[in-house]
Amino acid sequence: MAQNKPWGGRFKRPTSKLVEDYTQSVDFDRYLFKQDIIGSKAHAKSLAKAGIINQDELNLLLKGLDQIAQEIEQGEFKWRRELEDVHMNIEARLIELVGDVGKKLHTARSRNDQVALDFRLFVAERLKSWQKALLEVINSLLIQAEQNVQTLLPGFTHLQPAQPISLAQHLLAYAWMLKRDFERIQDCLVRVEVSPLGAAALAGSTYALDPNWVKDELGLGQAFANSMDAVADRDFVLEALFVGSVVQMHLSRWCAEIILWANPCFGFVSLPDEFATGSSIMPQKKNPDVAELMRGKTGRVYGNLIALLTILKGLVLTYNRDLQEDKEPFLDTDKTVFASLQLMAEMTLQLKFNSEKMLQTLKKGYLNATELADYLVSKGIPFREAHHLTGQLVSLAEEKKVGLEELSLEEMQTVCPQIEEDVYNVLDYFQAVKRRNISGGTGFESIANQLSELKKWQAEQKKTLT
Amino acid sequence: MAQNKPWGGRFKRPTSKLVEDYTQSVDFDRYLFKQDIIGSKAHAKSLAKAGIINQDELNLLLKGLDQIAQEIEQGEFKWRRELEDVHMNIEARLIELVGDVGKKLHTARSRNDQVALDFRLFVAERLKSWQKALLEVINSLLIQAEQNVQTLLPGFTHLQPAQPISLAQHLLAYAWMLKRDFERIQDCLVRVEVSPLGAAALAGSTYALDPNWVKDELGLGQAFANSMDAVADRDFVLEALFVGSVVQMHLSRWCAEIILWANPCFGFVSLPDEFATGSSIMPQKKNPDVAELMRGKTGRVYGNLIALLTILKGLVLTYNRDLQEDKEPFLDTDKTVFASLQLMAEMTLQLKFNSEKMLQTLKKGYLNATELADYLVSKGIPFREAHHLTGQLVSLAEEKKVGLEELSLEEMQTVCPQIEEDVYNVLDYFQAVKRRNISGGTGFESIANQLSELKKWQAEQKKTLT
Amino acid sequence: MAQNKPWGGRFKRPTSKLVEDYTQSVDFDRYLFKQDIIGSKAHAKSLAKAGIINQDELNLLLKGLDQIAQEIEQGEFKWRRELEDVHMNIEARLIELVGDVGKKLHTARSRNDQVALDFRLFVAERLKSWQKALLEVINSLLIQAEQNVQTLLPGFTHLQPAQPISLAQHLLAYAWMLKRDFERIQDCLVRVEVSPLGAAALAGSTYALDPNWVKDELGLGQAFANSMDAVADRDFVLEALFVGSVVQMHLSRWCAEIILWANPCFGFVSLPDEFATGSSIMPQKKNPDVAELMRGKTGRVYGNLIALLTILKGLVLTYNRDLQEDKEPFLDTDKTVFASLQLMAEMTLQLKFNSEKMLQTLKKGYLNATELADYLVSKGIPFREAHHLTGQLVSLAEEKKVGLEELSLEEMQTVCPQIEEDVYNVLDYFQAVKRRNISGGTGFESIANQLSELKKWQAEQKKTLT
Amino acid sequence: MAQNKPWGGRFKRPTSKLVEDYTQSVDFDRYLFKQDIIGSKAHAKSLAKAGIINQDELNLLLKGLDQIAQEIEQGEFKWRRELEDVHMNIEARLIELVGDVGKKLHTARSRNDQVALDFRLFVAERLKSWQKALLEVINSLLIQAEQNVQTLLPGFTHLQPAQPISLAQHLLAYAWMLKRDFERIQDCLVRVEVSPLGAAALAGSTYALDPNWVKDELGLGQAFANSMDAVADRDFVLEALFVGSVVQMHLSRWCAEIILWANPCFGFVSLPDEFATGSSIMPQKKNPDVAELMRGKTGRVYGNLIALLTILKGLVLTYNRDLQEDKEPFLDTDKTVFASLQLMAEMTLQLKFNSEKMLQTLKKGYLNATELADYLVSKGIPFREAHHLTGQLVSLAEEKKVGLEELSLEEMQTVCPQIEEDVYNVLDYFQAVKRRNISGGTGFESIANQLSELKKWQAEQKKTLT
Repeated sequence: MAQNKPWGGRFKRPTSKLVEDYTQSVDFDRYLFKQDIIGSKAHAKSLAKAGIINQDELNLLLKGLDQIAQEIEQGEFKWRRELEDVHMNIEARLIELVGDVGKKLHTARSRNDQVALDFRLFVAERLKSWQKALLEVINSLLIQAEQNVQTLLPGFTHLQPAQPISLAQHLLAYAWMLKRDFERIQDCLVRVEVSPLGAAALAGSTYALDPNWVKDELGLGQAFANSMDAVADRDFVLEALFVGSVVQMHLSRWCAEIILWANPCFGFVSLPDEFATGSSIMPQKKNPDVAELMRGKTGRVYGNLIALLTILKGLVLTYNRDLQEDKEPFLDTDKTVFASLQLMAEMTLQLKFNSEKMLQTLKKGYLNATELADYLVSKGIPFREAHHLTGQLVSLAEEKKVGLEELSLEEMQTVCPQIEEDVYNVLDYFQAVKRRNISGGTGFESIANQLSELKKWQAEQKKTLT
Repeated sequence: MAQNKPWGGRFKRPTSKLVEDYTQSVDFDRYLFKQDIIGSKAHAKSLAKAGIINQDELNLLLKGLDQIAQEIEQGEFKWRRELEDVHMNIEARLIELVGDVGKKLHTARSRNDQVALDFRLFVAERLKSWQKALLEVINSLLIQAEQNVQTLLPGFTHLQPAQPISLAQHLLAYAWMLKRDFERIQDCLVRVEVSPLGAAALAGSTYALDPNWVKDELGLGQAFANSMDAVADRDFVLEALFVGSVVQMHLSRWCAEIILWANPCFGFVSLPDEFATGSSIMPQKKNPDVAELMRGKTGRVYGNLIALLTILKGLVLTYNRDLQEDKEPFLDTDKTVFASLQLMAEMTLQLKFNSEKMLQTLKKGYLNATELADYLVSKGIPFREAHHLTGQLVSLAEEKKVGLEELSLEEMQTVCPQIEEDVYNVLDYFQAVKRRNISGGTGFESIANQLSELKKWQAEQKKTLT
Repeated sequence: MAQNKPWGGRFKRPTSKLVEDYTQSVDFDRYLFKQDIIGSKAHAKSLAKAGIINQDELNLLLKGLDQIAQEIEQGEFKWRRELEDVHMNIEARLIELVGDVGKKLHTARSRNDQVALDFRLFVAERLKSWQKALLEVINSLLIQAEQNVQTLLPGFTHLQPAQPISLAQHLLAYAWMLKRDFERIQDCLVRVEVSPLGAAALAGSTYALDPNWVKDELGLGQAFANSMDAVADRDFVLEALFVGSVVQMHLSRWCAEIILWANPCFGFVSLPDEFATGSSIMPQKKNPDVAELMRGKTGRVYGNLIALLTILKGLVLTYNRDLQEDKEPFLDTDKTVFASLQLMAEMTLQLKFNSEKMLQTLKKGYLNATELADYLVSKGIPFREAHHLTGQLVSLAEEKKVGLEELSLEEMQTVCPQIEEDVYNVLDYFQAVKRRNISGGTGFESIANQLSELKKWQAEQKKTLT
Repeated sequence: MAQNKPWGGRFKRPTSKLVEDYTQSVDFDRYLFKQDIIGSKAHAKSLAKAGIINQDELNLLLKGLDQIAQEIEQGEFKWRRELEDVHMNIEARLIELVGDVGKKLHTARSRNDQVALDFRLFVAERLKSWQKALLEVINSLLIQAEQNVQTLLPGFTHLQPAQPISLAQHLLAYAWMLKRDFERIQDCLVRVEVSPLGAAALAGSTYALDPNWVKDELGLGQAFANSMDAVADRDFVLEALFVGSVVQMHLSRWCAEIILWANPCFGFVSLPDEFATGSSIMPQKKNPDVAELMRGKTGRVYGNLIALLTILKGLVLTYNRDLQEDKEPFLDTDKTVFASLQLMAEMTLQLKFNSEKMLQTLKKGYLNATELADYLVSKGIPFREAHHLTGQLVSLAEEKKVGLEELSLEEMQTVCPQIEEDVYNVLDYFQAVKRRNISGGTGFESIANQLSELKKWQAEQKKTLT
């Protein structure tokens, strides 16, 4: 066909096929089949309740829809691209199965409110799955933290060693981030779980349906407030894409640390075989492939957010076909975020931390120097001078290639006679960590409190989610 | 200096000046001066409570800080770039004013927790201002909606006329969007209003401060849970940047409609002079400059979100100087979103809607054709045939250049004898709108309910915000 | 396996499967099979030339590779996810086919330079396809422009009618944009068509290969300059993603106009059936679905650009697994941009412009008012006064609901006695367009020149591309 | 004024002031004053050439414009926000200075073509400045590379030590990236240096101006091809924003390495004092602030690109006020990219590399293991077995905490008797690097060639730019 065109000759497929490929959505919206069927069953009941169909018709419709669900789940359903989308595929099959009564199902409904409902149900379900997966990662962090309260390492600012910290404190920082993500999802769900059924094409159905009854039937928190908004609003997807971006960003930060710590110059962590690729020649070498990929996947998750933001900019009311482009970004973000969380839960659990190497590095960093300066101040030496003397002692220790705590009392006293035996307690790294028992600090008590608070919260959430 | 370099000769300013310009933040973080002083006063009280400073010292510090606040507000404060940031500028002045006791203020605090606190206080304050401004826009929409319940226009899908709607329904769609934005901010605020004081550089202070006491003093909801997270977390800004993006996106949609409606082919709206530029030659012409600019500004707001997402990707714990780049995106988004809301509140209020033109357009669009088809179905004509007959009647009306409702009964009956006198009621546009009284629909009753619900909500929020 | 984990029980698939799914790339890099085989054949010849394999071995390898290409093309090749990527799948099959000599193919090569080569060849081929498709769209624009030189419509600024223009000028504006896109691709190709073969893992091969020989064999313009850059560089993809974003943005602008013009208030254009969905009730109604979707797809194309920008930010040398995420964004952008161009070529060609409606709208807009003001100035009336008088005449015409050119000379002279018979020539819209014959203007001569310049350029490019 | 509004009371500034602040552009487009004056002078000459003004008028205009340029440069010009933009500010002053003839300057010109010209001239000038600054960074890299040809360090893949490389090769990788950036700018400039003068508002001027004459006068490569495209096109800014994004991304990669190498676990590099902040207590500690900030600033540069992409999406022809938002993103990107390049040139030059630490790390990584395996293969041992034996030898060396090259011949022979004295040459790291003399490899000869090629190129470019 296109071949006859003056400009043509190049395109092998006739135009109608190109248009069909371009505009069809069944390739991706078929993933919403379960939600489409749940929504249709609720709508059928709603029609029955309003007296638009009778009980026999309702039963036929419900039975037909259940059978279709089964066919799809068992891979026996024949998806047809020429029927464009999941809705038409299912409707066509329904009519095959139950006859003309199948055509009544679409009464008082439009594809505009139907697709909005399906997608809202889908997003809600996936967000809850993310929550479960977040709990798993938090759980892994808690298990590792619990085992590493006494594991000390240098805490970094500017990627420079700054102060001694407990590895548990470091791990728990991520647990708290992910808890925030969990709560962000919680907030988002309130705006996702809204039923648009009854909004019809844009102006509201003329039939006496009860949007509040149907939202209860669907287990949703709210019914739509305004029919035009109901069919044109994609804020709920945007918000899900944003929350997913924050989750993946948090994972990317933890991945970057794993990659760094697995470098032999650090050597803080050893990766489980499954999450790395090795070398037959150099047995000690391991490439942290999963962590790298997970960090890299942040790109696509951000990209998906930008995609929908771009689509919605300047779009006039109400439904425009541009909105069909809302699904693929979310499907991709969902796949990425969920798989990343699953793998992170296990990878984190299986990390082997090298506490010896961490401690060594801590000592080389002279991270008890601040403690020493504070000690000198407590001995009545003015602040500026205390700092200066500490600098001299660090230089002395560096020369001798030892830690400050390995200098003898005599050596220290040559620099500053006020130093006494009690300095060794001050210079002890465990003491330094211990002293930071302020609520939320790296002190062991503070960590114990954090652990118990997080465990309690986690247990409560687990209960709610099942 | 740079001139002596082998590669040099080109750069006129010596390097140290370039570095100072590049790294200083006082040019923009000075906008946080009020928050810095509030935070410092709370910290000073906290130090006094812990016995680290005495009451006299506290009084001196508080007095000094108050004086600085006054100096800045009155434009008498001399900001010095070489002091890098707002914190050092204020501290230096404090020491000038109160002497050595000024140096004690920074005890048990680091710039890392200090800047996090200042910025959290700032973001919280601005978000509340956005909420107030959102209420103003909603208010304007309510006022216009109330006056335009009976104004009918074609509702669009695919930018094609689809069904008759009330202008009020259209306006309220935006009110509901903005209400969601308000609620998103509410959720976000819970995560913004967290005090990081006591986290110190990254590991927690060694002093016996009480983070919970100080957060109450600051009127914040929570204290930090983990010191490392406290200084490395910028989720709260991200979330504010996202919420701002959604707000501006909503405004861009409304702007796009105003621009479209102001085009003479539509002619639905006339812009207030202040929000448009005119032509001395063509008095009827008005460029909707403010609406265009507002739509365009969506770009920078999205860009600011992407900026911070990019910064945080793969960033290891804890504080890294990259984080200094968190402020300018928010300042720009804040300026843009807040000014846009302010102007939108007034522009919306002053729009003159041309109800005559809307009705004319509605009639030309044959938007009562669906009603007619439904009518034929109700007369027992099968669905498919009803559609076909309606198509014929539309063609007839088009030929005669009249509306369907302007065809005589005889004319209609030539196409379909079952049509009776009661068809005119069906074809009446007001009746068509009226019929959509489903909760949330465009029916007049539904609109009345929406109006009263929104007004009630708005009144409650106004009370809470003041 | 995962079920035994303390945290587990939830994940149904064992970890190794999850990791395999997460890290495999064969699902998408299989699209590069042709390039992988072309690259391997060139590398095999290169090995033979360097004496690393003999002629018989070379022949075996070439034959095996050709067979694999055939198997894949005919859908007989069994892709195996557990072999991770396209390279390993093909290599494994090669060893099956030709035995141990197959193992020699990877001598002096690493997956790092191999994948970079494959992807460069792929991107280059696709960019050339975009160029061909751009020529087709330009061709459609030229055909339509040629037929619409005398079709006048109002040119808009601020979406307000501003000056009369020829539809051809409007269409050609898009042709010039797309020509720029063509040239941007040309520039980009120089940086894409670089052979990385010989860079090996990162440091350069130790074998005496000749990178310049092999790049000639591959028909590429350059060989890599630095082995570390060769394996870590993804600028070439970024640039392709950017060029694709600009193309899609241009299409989105043209789509937005088609959507607008198809609205009955404008009525400037009627869409071919294949590119729109209709209504059985309202025969005149057509939803411009393809144009809407194409505009919406700008989102994903921008998102893909952001994805790779995010990935590359702050990534240290050399190859990191994050880079595996470079392919999917390009594959998606390629699919989108290419299909959009194909459809736009045909949709543009098939648009039916309603010149009558355009002219009517032009007249209603009083777009000859500027011409009139200029005329008055030429009659010696001071500029300001001329503008004022023109405004009065427009008001008069508006009152009478006629165009300025429909006012009688007497009517005009009541406002301004200096007006003479020659005013009607000035007020003629065709004259107004004609006067703008400045090179590049909307005058008919200028348009003829543009048409001939573009045709000549197009013909030359077509020759080069085949 | 706003106070009287029913919704008002909150906004302290009257609306007109808010609108003025929101819509004015003089706050940022004043940076284009030089280009506005250059453009106006060329336009004045063009008017004279066409006989629209006489020579005396031309002289007056040129003199007036020159005086304004001087006033602005000397800070004596009074910018007035109420005059909105740079063009009106200059025009108003011109009329003050030269009287009514000043009003003639705007003949045959519109703000639409005027602002496009100004911005094109500005972007072109800034891009050339970026080119100069890129040459400076390349120069610093060349100087450091030249001094570090013999400095060996481990080359990383997956941030794991992979093969020994020369530091020069690593540095030159960046030089080649930046050379590409330089060339991208070159390509971009062709599309930036286009004169839109004569396009007028959108349809082309009616005056007999010669766009080709004026583009020569302005030193630009082309005149506009289509008047509507000329005023609506912002591709040239987009492209500049993209090129800037790639530059900043490249810098972010180098910064990430500097930050990593400055960490004491690596200790590969020591930062110049000016580019870091130190600690009075720990003299060895340095925070790489400038590198961190530079990496962080990638965010804003990406954000600026997204901003303009967003603005242009779906924007109909021709000029829309949205386009005013094109300037600030570019100004910010320009400021950021240019300052980053300037600082990077100096920072790179002043880096002190710790070759001792690099070599130590190299040895610990057993990066000669691959060489050993190749050696065994050359001794006739099958590939798989060679790998296995190498693994055993690495384990032996690890046990003894020595490098492979520090094992005695006897020790090696216990694992593999075929090993002979010549193994030590193979194990020598310098030999390993040397062997990679393939063009573009890390071999010393290859590096020498790269250095001389880059120097030659650089010298040529420098000549062209001045």
